[in-house]
Amino acid sequence: MSHLAGRPTSYARVTLSRIMSQTDVNLYGTVHGGVIMKLIDDAAGAASARHSGGNAVTAAIDEIVLLQPVRVGDLVRADAQINWTGRTSMEVGVRVLAEPWDRAGTDPVPVATAYLAFVGVDADGEPRPIPAVTPETDEDKRRWHEAEIRREHRLARRRAIRTSRGLDA
Amino acid sequence: MSHLAGRPTSYARVTLSRIMSQTDVNLYGTVHGGVIMKLIDDAAGAASARHSGGNAVTAAIDEIVLLQPVRVGDLVRADAQINWTGRTSMEVGVRVLAEPWDRAGTDPVPVATAYLAFVGVDADGEPRPIPAVTPETDEDKRRWHEAEIRREHRLARRRAIRTSRGLDA
Amino acid sequence: MSHLAGRPTSYARVTLSRIMSQTDVNLYGTVHGGVIMKLIDDAAGAASARHSGGNAVTAAIDEIVLLQPVRVGDLVRADAQINWTGRTSMEVGVRVLAEPWDRAGTDPVPVATAYLAFVGVDADGEPRPIPAVTPETDEDKRRWHEAEIRREHRLARRRAIRTSRGLDA
Amino acid sequence: MSHLAGRPTSYARVTLSRIMSQTDVNLYGTVHGGVIMKLIDDAAGAASARHSGGNAVTAAIDEIVLLQPVRVGDLVRADAQINWTGRTSMEVGVRVLAEPWDRAGTDPVPVATAYLAFVGVDADGEPRPIPAVTPETDEDKRRWHEAEIRREHRLARRRAIRTSRGLDA
Amino acid sequence: MSHLAGRPTSYARVTLSRIMSQTDVNLYGTVHGGVIMKLIDDAAGAASARHSGGNAVTAAIDEIVLLQPVRVGDLVRADAQINWTGRTSMEVGVRVLAEPWDRAGTDPVPVATAYLAFVGVDADGEPRPIPAVTPETDEDKRRWHEAEIRREHRLARRRAIRTSRGLDA
Amino acid sequence: MSHLAGRPTSYARVTLSRIMSQTDVNLYGTVHGGVIMKLIDDAAGAASARHSGGNAVTAAIDEIVLLQPVRVGDLVRADAQINWTGRTSMEVGVRVLAEPWDRAGTDPVPVATAYLAFVGVDADGEPRPIPAVTPETDEDKRRWHEAEIRREHRLARRRAIRTSRGLDA
Repeated sequence: MSHLAGRPTSYARVTLSRIMSQTDVNLYGTVHGGVIMKLIDDAAGAASARHSGGNAVTAAIDEIVLLQPVRVGDLVRADAQINWTGRTSMEVGVRVLAEPWDRAGTDPVPVATAYLAFVGVDADGEPRPIPAVTPETDEDKRRWHEAEIRREHRLARRRAIRTSRGLDA
Repeated sequence: MSHLAGRPTSYARVTLSRIMSQTDVNLYGTVHGGVIMKLIDDAAGAASARHSGGNAVTAAIDEIVLLQPVRVGDLVRADAQINWTGRTSMEVGVRVLAEPWDRAGTDPVPVATAYLAFVGVDADGEPRPIPAVTPETDEDKRRWHEAEIRREHRLARRRAIRTSRGLDA
Repeated sequence: MSHLAGRPTSYARVTLSRIMSQTDVNLYGTVHGGVIMKLIDDAAGAASARHSGGNAVTAAIDEIVLLQPVRVGDLVRADAQINWTGRTSMEVGVRVLAEPWDRAGTDPVPVATAYLAFVGVDADGEPRPIPAVTPETDEDKRRWHEAEIRREHRLARRRAIRTSRGLDA
Repeated sequence: MSHLAGRPTSYARVTLSRIMSQTDVNLYGTVHGGVIMKLIDDAAGAASARHSGGNAVTAAIDEIVLLQPVRVGDLVRADAQINWTGRTSMEVGVRVLAEPWDRAGTDPVPVATAYLAFVGVDADGEPRPIPAVTPETDEDKRRWHEAEIRREHRLARRRAIRTSRGLDA
Repeated sequence: MSHLAGRPTSYARVTLSRIMSQTDVNLYGTVHGGVIMKLIDDAAGAASARHSGGNAVTAAIDEIVLLQPVRVGDLVRADAQINWTGRTSMEVGVRVLAEPWDRAGTDPVPVATAYLAFVGVDADGEPRPIPAVTPETDEDKRRWHEAEIRREHRLARRRAIRTSRGLDA
Repeated sequence: MSHLAGRPTSYARVTLSRIMSQTDVNLYGTVHGGVIMKLIDDAAGAASARHSGGNAVTAAIDEIVLLQPVRVGDLVRADAQINWTGRTSMEVGVRVLAEPWDRAGTDPVPVATAYLAFVGVDADGEPRPIPAVTPETDEDKRRWHEAEIRREHRLARRRAIRTSRGLDA
């Protein structure tokens, strides 16, 4: 399955957005990292289910970077899209933006970026083939390329750790 | 205060969106009307705070029409905008759309429309003057006009009820 | 079906009551309008299911007026009753009262009134005939009459808006 | 402080009521015992704060008996009243009743009874004197008397356990 | 069924632990007694299901003593074990300990102790025979003995109350 | 700051454990990945605050691998420990284990592993120096070493991505 065939990136873009409330707060008074992580997983889950036209489950979180604290009252938006596809798995990229709910006219500020691996699964929970994603814009193509770099480094890291444990790399 | 001065409608448009989960379900297995009502109030609250540049509270819900049931797994989006402004109060219109989370390519279906009255309040909770909204598009102008019709009928209805109670209308 | 036949108003009166907690608070420190709206919908839903002896769903909220802010710690009570019945639909009236949880001896204060339209539905979600409500007290009869006024004005308002859109009223 | 002086039982009666939802369910599909316990504690807490005119905290639960399972959709009501008062502590009795939300005409069924000890506390969390409760009805007097029996047996049980541990009773 | 046969106490020890958050707070700013009660019921429910190898439901709470307030940010741990078994019922003892989440090196402080009666139930919710617990340590044996003291006093108390009501004890 | 000085690994080990409930379920009937992620973040947050003796915030999630689905009713345990420390940041490793709540005698199954970067912060949210962790066991030393491998690969990956964007690596 070539990445030139299949569904365009725009097919499965998903945005979730909500206002952070008192119940989202950690012990320091800012929004709990786990709340942002759950929002990221929700958005990525919806994008991967859309793209693959069925069930898809989180296999791994490759990286989540929390750039700055989010506050109660912030309107937070998570934009998810499919960056890369393999035979049964895909990388979903999520960008999280925040802006104070009662102020407009300033641009929303990036507060987190995340890359997650999802796997399409059938009714028995077994991996199933998924359509390829077709990057449309230059930005989409850049994201595909960077997903490959992340993938190479993930595999290299695993080999290095296995070797250091004296296991067959 | 003329509705031609002040802030354009686009200044305070707010969209909230989330996926309906198992915890949103009523006793019939569909999404609880109260969950949709809370989403509507959240979106309208954010739009009115933005437009008025400060605190604003729900004074009344003029009408919420629930057009069809929402299901667990639906991606639901509430779009709020300021339809009309008076000296201290404003009408916020909210349109709620739903689509199954794992299907794309079909248009989201309208599931609710709502009109709410919000009042700008100062730190003591007292009404404060708010900026006028300036309708931009023909659609914005139609909404302003219909808000005035709703307002007239609301006042007429109250008079009729007061009269029927034998009170001074 | 005459409104003199059927079930008396007292048959389906429902009261829900709870203490407002920290998780019910909006960004201004008072209780979220959406929390009160959900309580109203819960109480109205129970009253309509009781009266109609089966499933009933929110069709529309005709009006909710929030009279004054509710605070954390308030004991809040929602009293719902059937005001009016048609062939498949009914109007439910809800009155919400609040009192500080740790003070007694003062009367609870009205904080909201609401009128909702519910429709009885069968197992397929299709409208089904419901019993008529029989107003018992003078107060019940006044409520039936005012429900009819609200209904007339709702229909008149819809006609006015359709006309203003150039549609067949 | 005599139990004939002070506030009558009716001064601080509190009823909380709500409909059990999907989120209240345990792993067997009935309502979680812990949910009923929390409702009992809420009602008792409100009654003790009212009676004592200020802060009061749960010191102990003397007994909660769960009589039969509660189901999703049940309308559950907890009635709390002050059964007995000492200098700084009081016994609160709570009776919990349930009825299916969409059926009327049958009496609500008792599903739990509970007896809790609350202590009035001042701003520093230290015990403070509380008003005596004045039983009004024969039922109230019976409850006072039974609270004394429970109290005697609680003290006797603690002595027996201390003795069995070889401690000074 | 002798208490010397059956499963050892260690077979069904269960520990639950979590950090108290803002949403667990009562109106005084400390953790809600009901939250601790629910944690106790969860831990006891898991221990009784494990010991009895199937469904088990809360029949009664014999005693919960809340020793001192719990604060937001405390890491709270509930240790549950089977203290005593009869033919179909068992006593579960729960000890709750708390420590500030960001401090180590001090011992966790006991904040509650509880004794609950659970009954093993079959698929129809009817009582079913359960294995006996075999106390292992001196501490386990002491707990068995004290459970019997609590049981005797519970029965004595019920007799006393029935007698005071003029009922056949 | 040498990793031989400072606090031993055992000083800040934290375990959180809870039973998965109906409200934790995703749209496929298994436990939501985001729920496990939040539990991981909670445990890691507590361990980092303990080790550093004060506030610490999530800077990044280096990797979370979800090994197999978790089910409602599973007793889930997250064990967190400090793997590695720098001047102001630390790597926290979390292992998540699950076992059916009503079965004992089988070993808990690993369901997730995670590595997170936390930064100690002062009252203004600025990074502050933290104590070094002193690995105690061979396992602790292996974890320190693997944290360094992960760190090297993270930096290498970032350089590779910056280079591919034509930025100064």
